[in-house]
Amino acid sequence: MKYPHGVRRSNSFASSRNQSYSNRGMTLEEDINLTNEYYLTMNLAVIHKKPTPVQIVNVNYPKRSAAVITEAYFQQASTTDYNGVYRGKYIDFEAKETRSTTSFPLANVHEHQVRHMKSVIKHGGISFMIIRFTNLQETYFYGANNLFQYWDDQQVGGRKSIPYDEIKSTGYFIPFKYQPRVPYLDILNKLYF
Amino acid sequence: MKYPHGVRRSNSFASSRNQSYSNRGMTLEEDINLTNEYYLTMNLAVIHKKPTPVQIVNVNYPKRSAAVITEAYFQQASTTDYNGVYRGKYIDFEAKETRSTTSFPLANVHEHQVRHMKSVIKHGGISFMIIRFTNLQETYFYGANNLFQYWDDQQVGGRKSIPYDEIKSTGYFIPFKYQPRVPYLDILNKLYF
Repeated sequence: MKYPHGVRRSNSFASSRNQSYSNRGMTLEEDINLTNEYYLTMNLAVIHKKPTPVQIVNVNYPKRSAAVITEAYFQQASTTDYNGVYRGKYIDFEAKETRSTTSFPLANVHEHQVRHMKSVIKHGGISFMIIRFTNLQETYFYGANNLFQYWDDQQVGGRKSIPYDEIKSTGYFIPFKYQPRVPYLDILNKLYF
Repeated sequence: MKYPHGVRRSNSFASSRNQSYSNRGMTLEEDINLTNEYYLTMNLAVIHKKPTPVQIVNVNYPKRSAAVITEAYFQQASTTDYNGVYRGKYIDFEAKETRSTTSFPLANVHEHQVRHMKSVIKHGGISFMIIRFTNLQETYFYGANNLFQYWDDQQVGGRKSIPYDEIKSTGYFIPFKYQPRVPYLDILNKLYF
């Protein structure tokens, strides 16, 4: 898709820096974006990544060309990164990678994200995490309710990470495929439909 | 809510320029953001505005202070601005103001937004527009299906705007209230629940 001034559509800074779409070395975010494009094209689901929230401070409006943002700052997201609709259901998730091979550090998740996921479930939506252990090359679907247990425990002095074994046993392995890359709807089909 | 470096949370450039929250002169976007905050606080719905999509080109990382984006460009949104979950249903809408008193110009809506709204409905979500006639001080809930008719007609040479009278008769008037400002869930309750 072509955008004004030849700008390639790319909401995330990470993906705009890494334009080589080789099979190896793609980030989880890039894999999920491709997956969502596939789901949209195949008319299976409408799920998008939200743009990176940015606080815009200064904009220049040169004559006869596009406005240039000359000063802006990254903001912390108040929700999860991905949401949309699948088979009539509201879908909401966060995707995270870790290099650890033994556990997923809870520092990767922010408190308002957890609060948001709790609200989503309260209102009848489906919420989960997609966690990739980069060095193990394994990706898991991990239900938000499981996350909440570890999160709430941590608040009262519990461990600061979720053990890999726990994610492996209570989560669901998502095989890496050529198309779509991260077929997470397969897990949703088993669990909810 | 306080964010790092004292940055006030404000996803939109418009609202960051207009910090005075007086009753008059607030934009529709500001009114809807306050409405959504109210709905979230009252535990009625989880609906957020998506951040403005920005293509980030250059970032400075000064020592001991926040990363500064020094070059970035506004991108056209590929979806609508607002989405979330209400009573288990996926909600998706776009909000637009017009100064016209006789019609709503279709130029205010982009083609990929219409395509997105069509997909949302196909997948069982609820989609609509909130249209404010600024000079009339009237706000309407206007179902996406009605919009599609005018949109598709326009593609084959039909009129380039939706008459005010049509919006008034097939849409639903949303009264302006103190809290919440734009009580659009009341309309959803009547139509869908």
